[in-house]
Parts: sequence; structure tokens; C-alpha cells
Amino acid sequence: MKKGVLRPGHMQIRVLDLDEAVKHYTEVLGLIEMDRDPQGRVYLKAWTEVDKFSLVLREADVPGLDFVGYKCLNESTVDTLRQQLIEYGCTVEDIHENELNGCGRRVRFDSPTGHVFELFASKEQTGRWGVSNHNPEAWPRGLRGMKAQRLDHCLLYGPNIAGTVDLFREVLGFDLVEQVLDGDTRVAAFLTSSMKAHDVAFIECPEPGKLHHISFLLESWDEVLRAADLISMTDTSIDIGPTRHGITHGKTIYFFDPSGNRNEVFAGGNYFYSDHEPITWDAEQLGKAIFYHDRVLNDAFLSVLT
Amino acid sequence: MKKGVLRPGHMQIRVLDLDEAVKHYTEVLGLIEMDRDPQGRVYLKAWTEVDKFSLVLREADVPGLDFVGYKCLNESTVDTLRQQLIEYGCTVEDIHENELNGCGRRVRFDSPTGHVFELFASKEQTGRWGVSNHNPEAWPRGLRGMKAQRLDHCLLYGPNIAGTVDLFREVLGFDLVEQVLDGDTRVAAFLTSSMKAHDVAFIECPEPGKLHHISFLLESWDEVLRAADLISMTDTSIDIGPTRHGITHGKTIYFFDPSGNRNEVFAGGNYFYSDHEPITWDAEQLGKAIFYHDRVLNDAFLSVLT
Amino acid sequence: MKKGVLRPGHMQIRVLDLDEAVKHYTEVLGLIEMDRDPQGRVYLKAWTEVDKFSLVLREADVPGLDFVGYKCLNESTVDTLRQQLIEYGCTVEDIHENELNGCGRRVRFDSPTGHVFELFASKEQTGRWGVSNHNPEAWPRGLRGMKAQRLDHCLLYGPNIAGTVDLFREVLGFDLVEQVLDGDTRVAAFLTSSMKAHDVAFIECPEPGKLHHISFLLESWDEVLRAADLISMTDTSIDIGPTRHGITHGKTIYFFDPSGNRNEVFAGGNYFYSDHEPITWDAEQLGKAIFYHDRVLNDAFLSVLT
Amino acid sequence: MKKGVLRPGHMQIRVLDLDEAVKHYTEVLGLIEMDRDPQGRVYLKAWTEVDKFSLVLREADVPGLDFVGYKCLNESTVDTLRQQLIEYGCTVEDIHENELNGCGRRVRFDSPTGHVFELFASKEQTGRWGVSNHNPEAWPRGLRGMKAQRLDHCLLYGPNIAGTVDLFREVLGFDLVEQVLDGDTRVAAFLTSSMKAHDVAFIECPEPGKLHHISFLLESWDEVLRAADLISMTDTSIDIGPTRHGITHGKTIYFFDPSGNRNEVFAGGNYFYSDHEPITWDAEQLGKAIFYHDRVLNDAFLSVLT
Repeated sequence: MKKGVLRPGHMQIRVLDLDEAVKHYTEVLGLIEMDRDPQGRVYLKAWTEVDKFSLVLREADVPGLDFVGYKCLNESTVDTLRQQLIEYGCTVEDIHENELNGCGRRVRFDSPTGHVFELFASKEQTGRWGVSNHNPEAWPRGLRGMKAQRLDHCLLYGPNIAGTVDLFREVLGFDLVEQVLDGDTRVAAFLTSSMKAHDVAFIECPEPGKLHHISFLLESWDEVLRAADLISMTDTSIDIGPTRHGITHGKTIYFFDPSGNRNEVFAGGNYFYSDHEPITWDAEQLGKAIFYHDRVLNDAFLSVLT
Repeated sequence: MKKGVLRPGHMQIRVLDLDEAVKHYTEVLGLIEMDRDPQGRVYLKAWTEVDKFSLVLREADVPGLDFVGYKCLNESTVDTLRQQLIEYGCTVEDIHENELNGCGRRVRFDSPTGHVFELFASKEQTGRWGVSNHNPEAWPRGLRGMKAQRLDHCLLYGPNIAGTVDLFREVLGFDLVEQVLDGDTRVAAFLTSSMKAHDVAFIECPEPGKLHHISFLLESWDEVLRAADLISMTDTSIDIGPTRHGITHGKTIYFFDPSGNRNEVFAGGNYFYSDHEPITWDAEQLGKAIFYHDRVLNDAFLSVLT
Repeated sequence: MKKGVLRPGHMQIRVLDLDEAVKHYTEVLGLIEMDRDPQGRVYLKAWTEVDKFSLVLREADVPGLDFVGYKCLNESTVDTLRQQLIEYGCTVEDIHENELNGCGRRVRFDSPTGHVFELFASKEQTGRWGVSNHNPEAWPRGLRGMKAQRLDHCLLYGPNIAGTVDLFREVLGFDLVEQVLDGDTRVAAFLTSSMKAHDVAFIECPEPGKLHHISFLLESWDEVLRAADLISMTDTSIDIGPTRHGITHGKTIYFFDPSGNRNEVFAGGNYFYSDHEPITWDAEQLGKAIFYHDRVLNDAFLSVLT
Repeated sequence: MKKGVLRPGHMQIRVLDLDEAVKHYTEVLGLIEMDRDPQGRVYLKAWTEVDKFSLVLREADVPGLDFVGYKCLNESTVDTLRQQLIEYGCTVEDIHENELNGCGRRVRFDSPTGHVFELFASKEQTGRWGVSNHNPEAWPRGLRGMKAQRLDHCLLYGPNIAGTVDLFREVLGFDLVEQVLDGDTRVAAFLTSSMKAHDVAFIECPEPGKLHHISFLLESWDEVLRAADLISMTDTSIDIGPTRHGITHGKTIYFFDPSGNRNEVFAGGNYFYSDHEPITWDAEQLGKAIFYHDRVLNDAFLSVLT
């Protein structure tokens, strides 16, 4: 939080069939539907999140990511960073208050990897779902499916990650936590604005604006098993896991929503402070860096790199 | 234990390099070396086992299984079953006391699938390793690697599993816990002489006398993760996992010893009583039956079936 | 199962308010209501149990245990044991078929500690709740509360446990797994008819026919935490835990149903085979034997002993 | 990190017997001894910490806390905060570089509750113990005891916590995460400078400068059980647990070092961002707030309050 960016506050993704997607994110992931808007978008949140929503589903012909919004400490942080983004050379667009229900004005900007990001500071706070701020119980009864705790991060890929990484470090105050080096070239970068092992990550690939996965936090390795069981019981398409990542050391499973957007649920992993040196992985160890147990990339991951 | 057979008491396997194998089974699996004999065989046990040894390593040119020995309630059980094995048509061989260090006489017999089995009732009891029978602590300090708790079962494959299954049920009093049916043909059978989800399992394949894996019990799903981490840290060859089996519902990981013998470590899973109906899996669900999360067989498992 | 006794098949307990009790055992423990009878008794089961019911609630003015019934391998086992009970000196009563809904005839007998036991071999099998015997999923969705897996054992106290222990060992073929010795006097005994760390346990005390607790199996230590959380969330009266027992080494928590009957839910612990020596605890280590972490008895447990 | 304070960087505590204390913190907690100085102080760290040390043991006649030092982002942060502390009215003392081996200059200041705190920005970084920053394994082999991961926080008590809380919020930029209110009086406050549920906590009591406990992070609830087992195995004095806190919802166990300083090891719990409202507990719910399962304070905790 060196420059006032708190966390990933929302992601808007495209889904091919809204009803199927809502069913997936509520019944399998365990998110809570919070709102819908006249455009037909559906607003969801995970139960530990205090803001009204974190995931927005938009029906479209092609799956993928519309944008990621980072919540800032206050409006003056947004003002300051908006000016610095312009000075850095970004194209900045101002999105008016309530374009997303319950969300204040957003500052949208582009990036060298072709992804769209936003900054905002104000969003309606509905509080943790099912637990109070007054003598709160440990967790709410009535959670469904995987009981995802929060939208945690996303892994994006595109060309020129050097450019986007520089933007996040220099303008937004993110820190580099882990990286993969191919000789002198940084082919993957994991960045944080907090103590988390990553708030966003980038992998170099020729095609711009791509989404590898959006990721949700679970309570424990036991819950990763339960998630894996639910994937099987619900005939959800699995990618890989349960396993551990080398990078971040999180315990993880990858699977797909009905539109083909990759989801991750994970638990645990490293923590970070700004005085820590980044961790470096050699590109020839990429298999172990990504999938610590198998130590090889599966076909789906290999296809990202080409 | 309908006819007095308690449990798998020992397995003797062939390894290509004894020192490498001992290092693997002690430092990775966490077994304890208990003895060596003039033939050069090495005797190992897991820490919760009260008998002196359960795994015997023999150096040879080809890996695989020499034999599995089942411990019986007493010598009269061995006498009775020996006679019934002969009547059933088995070729029976009497192995004299102390052919294995500290083990009483064994009754060895053949089987339709080409595997060699034994019955015995007497073996030196050294007690649980590192804990006493008097005010015992919960677990011993000083365990290494995966901290395997006991040699649990093996999965064998060969032709005519119908014959071997009949032998185990009719003569030895094992129960059929789970099975895979391809139409009317039972292509896999999981048998128990106890409450365990399996004490032995068989899969139909053309080649006789084959070993798929020997399996060791762990404490928990957390320990399966720890095992997976150790597999990676020690550059041990992994097959698949961590995952869950459909059959038995155990939480598992498969990997290989340095000679290519497949090992499993697992935790949890179903229990069984003799009044339970067997669970049946359809052959077209074999992927899910074996690897519950991926729901497809990997190449290594597919090669077993042909 | 040396003499054909499989397991605890049912326990009938007395509750002061039936509705409150049903709510507790279904919503907190997670048992499933299976039936009611004209006497007003309520029949419950845990989800992994194949028989129709295991717990019977009877409304009465005083809480406690009516009887424990052990399921046998077959009717001829019941006949044989019935005769041996009579010869041993027990008062035997024949309970007719369907006195408990869906249960065959039962042979009821008394014991030196003042408890009433039964043997039976036939009970309607409804199968595991929510999962099939055909390509079964790992667990059923829709379980509530603690998701208890099975009725596992009970701990009883009364005078002359030496007599009841002798009865269980000599007539019913149970094994002594663990014991507490005060000098030469066995003041506590943990007995099994299977691989379980105990199917029944006894503690010496002056008052006859007392119930310390009925116990249900959970999946894991994580589920013991979840149970503890639910105890707090539902304002259920707690006794002690989460903790570990020294005896059996199970991970446990004790609490009370609304009538004051003590419940346990637990996970893990030792396994047993008939060739194992019993484990012995010294009476001066009783605190550690019962509550391994605190190493002292709490007031509730101390009151049992006097 | 609103004003550049990263985390608790070190605590110096007094122990009655240095050898016993070192044995406790290394063999039971699993810390690593890193250095000793001419004064005889012993420097320890937990394995995930990158700085050279976090815990300093000083032999003395009375146990307790000497001081807590917070690591800042850089030296200019220390300069700025030093000036603001003076303006706030604190007595500030400059401690020269290397007064603690490998640590830069420290700014020491007093507080209304009678505790001594420090700020510093420079300390030798030896890196995580047993794992590299280059292709790191998931965890180091060779860890002992509870495998504590980091020194996490401390709970302090004294008079006028309102004053110390104000100091931490206004000058050091800490946030109030949770509080206990007795009517309008805040009798307990949990503060963070990061995403952690607390970096320091205060409870009101008449006696100044008291230490309730120092706390270390563990990996999981499974590791809390393992810690509890080790407490029993090593005859370490236990206070309470395993259990969960209501405040923070962490899973915890309290015990004592040989000098009577209370230790906590814990896992999990809430996370925090600066836009979160504080959680409030009523004083009449203090039992549940502190010990979520028992819902009553034990005698040791009650004695803190008087």
C-alpha cells in the first residue's frame, strides 16, 4: 500500500450464458448474488468481503476479462494516481459514479499488455455476508459450495509485461514479489500492493489482453480437497490440481466456468513485506514454479506461452 | 476376519539398487530399518506396526513383487487354511521358521493371477516404534519424511482375477468391498479381511504376477500434501496426485521408488463391515473410479489395462 | 469380530424434550431422522451407516441410556451367543422383531455394571444416506451441522467393571485395547470387537448403569474445529475440547445435548488387531490419559469417579 | 502501512534461565538461534523471516517484556516518526547502531500503558532460513518442534490503553481492527499496521508495562494440534487450547516458557484493510471474544483484568 492502492476491488468478466454462470459462481464457488443492473450484469461477492460486490458477470459472445478495478484508500489517492497515470502516458477514461451499481467514480486506464484496469475509492459497504461487526461468529451458516472467502487476484497474459509491470511498480506502488527469468528477460511477474503473495500476476505471451485465471481464497488445504470433490460432483471441467504452486507456495486447484474462463481456488502461501527481496525462478524450472508437485506444465499452460 | 486372517503382514519387493531403495523407503517414506539378513535382504517397518517388519527389500535385476504374506490370528488358523488351500487346488509350499528373520513358518501358495501369497501367524513383536505400550505419547519424535504409519495394502494385476478373487473370498474369508463391472465382467475387485476399504485389490490384465503399487497409510490429507512436497524436494518420480480415489474415496498420491516400483501414500477413505453390500462402479466410469477429480486415467494407468 | 459381533448397531437414550433433542441431533450433530414409532420414539442415523437407524430417542423424565445393541454377523451368531450368555449367568430377554421399527429380534441381557445390552443380526438396510452403492460420490451434499459419520461407541460407568469386561471378552469376543490400572485394579477398560480403538469403554464408579457419553465419528481434526464452532454458534453446552485423548489418541470434543446427555465427536486415533498387546495407563496419569493436552481431569470428569 | 511502519520486527524478553529458555524457544517453538552478544543476549528468528532475528532473550531476575521494535519502510520514515513522537509528547531515546547485533539505530519511546517501544528501519537480512530466494522449495527440512513461521504480535496490558491506542493510531498510523467496549469504555484494542488481524493488542489493567503473551504464526490448525501434542510431550506448562479466539477468529493455543512468559502459537484468522470498520465486542461477551468455544475466561485470564 505504498501509494494507497488497497486491493483488487472488482473484476468484470464476460460469460456466454448468464444463468449458467450465475449458477456456477453461486452454487460451485459459493459467491453470493448481490445485485443486477439494467444492462443485465450480475454482481457477486465472497462472504468475507465488506464491499457490496467484487465480481461482475456480463453476458457476451466471447469469454474473458473486461477490466480489473483496484480499490484505493481514499478519493485523493485516486486523484493523485489519475494524474500520474496521465503523466506516465496512459490513456485515462473517467467512468461516472454508479455506472456499476453502488460504486463511486472510477478511473480507467490501459496498459502495455492490452488489459484494462481501474482505480476507485468508494463502494457501498454491505459488510461481511452472514456475520456482523458486533460480536461476530466465526463463519456464517448457509454458505454453499466451495465457500470462497474473497476474490484474491488474477493472472493475466499479453505482450510487453515489462511495460505493465513498470506501470504497476512506478505509478501504483506495487512491489515485485516473485519473477521468472529467461536469461535476462522477465517472462513472468507476481506483484502485490499488500502482504499477499500477489494481487496481480503477468505472463509474457504474444496475444494481448488475455486472462489466465481469476482466483478466490479458501480457508485451508482441506477446503481445496472439498473444492476438488465439488468439481467432480458437479461435472465441472477441471484443469489441474489439487496441487501446490512453486511460485507463492499456495495450495491450489484450477478449473473452468461454463464459458471457459479459468477459475482458481487456493489456500495459504507466502506473505510479503516491502523490504523483502523478490524471489526468482529460472525459466528452465517453470514447470516446478507453476505446478510444484508435477514439475511439468500441462498442455493448457503450455498453450499460454506460445 | 471371518476366517482368522488379520492383515497384510509383509510384502517382499525387488529393487535394482539396495542402497538407493533403503534411502528411499527410510528417508522419503519414513520407514524404519529393522534388520538385514545373510541374503542381503533389508527389513523395514512403519512406526505404528507392532510386528518387527512389514516390508522386505531384495536386490534383483527386475523390480516387482516377490510375495505378500497375511498374518493370521494363530497357528491353528494357518493349519486350517493350509488344508483348505490344498483342497481348493493351490500349490502350497511350506517355508521354514526364520527364513525371514524373526518370522515363524509360512505357508506359501500360488494364485490364478500369477501372484505368490503367504499365510503366517508368528512374528517377533518389537512394538510400535518410538512409543511405549505404557502411558504412550501421541506419536514419536524423530520420524522422517512422510512418516508412513503402516503398510496398508497392494494393488495387483494379472489375468483371471475372477479366480484369485474367488480364492480370497472362499478360502481366506475376504469380503468384496468394491468392484468395477464391464457388463457382467468384474474387471477390478477390492477385497478386505477387516474394516479397511481394502487389504488387497486386483485389476484384470493379460500379463501375470504384476504389481501396480504397494500402499502406506498416512495420518491426514495434510500429510498427503507434505508427502507431495517431499516428492518434489527429493526429485522423486511422481505418477499422479494429490487427489482422491473414487473407489475407497481415499486421499492419495502415487509415485515411484528408484527401481520403478510404484508406491502410494494415502489417508482416510471408507470403512467396511461384512454386512455391507459391495459398491459397484461401471467400467465406463473407470476414470472417475480411480482418479475422482481428474475423471480420466493417466497414461500410466491406461497401460496397466492392456 | 472373533465371535461374530460386528459393531455397535444402535443406542436408545432418554431425553427430556423430544423436539429439542431431535433438533439437536439433526441440526447440530447432523444426523438424519429416519422414522418415528407409535411409542413416539424417533429413529436417527449418521450418513455413512448402511442400516436404517443407529440412535433412538425416547422421551422420559430422566436422561440417560436405555440400552446398547450390537449387530452380529448373522442370526446363528445371535443364537450361539444367546446360549453362551445364559450359561455365563446373564438374565436374557428376547425382544420380538419390529419392537424397534425395521429391526429383527433382539436378545437383551444385563451386566454387572448395571447396563442393558442387546444383540441382533437383522435390520432394514437403507444404504448410506445421500450416496449410492453405484458410482458413489465422495460425500452427499445437504449434510447439516457437524456432519457426523457414524455412531461409534459409548463410555459407560458403574460398579464392577471387571465383571462386565469379562463378559464382553469371554462371551462376546471383544478384545481389551487399553486400560487404566490403579495398582492391580483395572479402573478403566476400552474394548473393541473390530479394528476400532474402542467399540465400548467402561470406568469404575459406585453408581450402576451410568452413561458418560455417546460418541460419533467425524472426518478430520478440521471437522472437530467446525464442530466446536457450531457448539458455540448454537449456544450448546460444552464440556471440554477441542483436544486429544491420551487413551486412543483420538481428537475430540465433549458437549451436552439439551437433556444433559454428554455427546462426543471425534476423529482419528489408534487402530487395533487381535494380536496387539493392550496399552496400559497408570491411574496417576489419568489426567493425561483422558485429556492429553491439559493433563488434568476437569470437574465434570472428576465427578464420574466418585 | 499508512505511515511506513511495516511490522513487529523484534521483541526482547527477560528469562530467568537462559539455557532453559533457549532450549524452549528452539526445541519446542522451533526458532533458530542466530547470534549471541557480549551482554549474553541470545538472538532467535523464525524460519520465514528474512531479517536476522526477531526474538531476543535476556537473562534477568524477573520475566517479562523489555521492548517491542517495529520495522519501518526506510530511515526517513524513522526520522519523520521520531519527530512526531516528540511532538506528541513521548520521551524519545536514540539507541545506537549495533546495540543489537546487526540492527541499525533505533528510536525508543515510552507509552501511557508503561510499555517501551522502538522504531527502526535497518537490520541485516539473512533471508528465510533453509530456503533460498532462487527456485525455493516449499519449506526447509530440518525444522524442529512447532515449526513457528514468524513472530507475529504481542498482547500487552496496562493502565490507560486509550492513551497508547491513540499514540499508535495517530502517530504510527496503525488501524483499530477490533475492540471490546464496556459501555463507552474501550477495555481492549487490537491494532494493525498491515493486513494482519493484529500487530499489537492492549487490554486495560491497573498495573503498567505488563506482557500477556508473545505470539508466533503456525501453518494450519493441524499444526496447532501438533503444537499441543508437543506441549504435552515436553511437559511444557499449558494455559488453554487448542481453541479459537472470537476476536480475530484465529485458532490458538497458549502455554508458558520456563520463566513464565506466556507464548501463543496460532493459525489463520481474519484479514484487514484500512477501509474496514472495526469489529466491536461487548464486555459481557468477553469470554466468547477471547475463548470462542468455552465462552468463559479461565482463571489466568481473569487475573489479567484486576
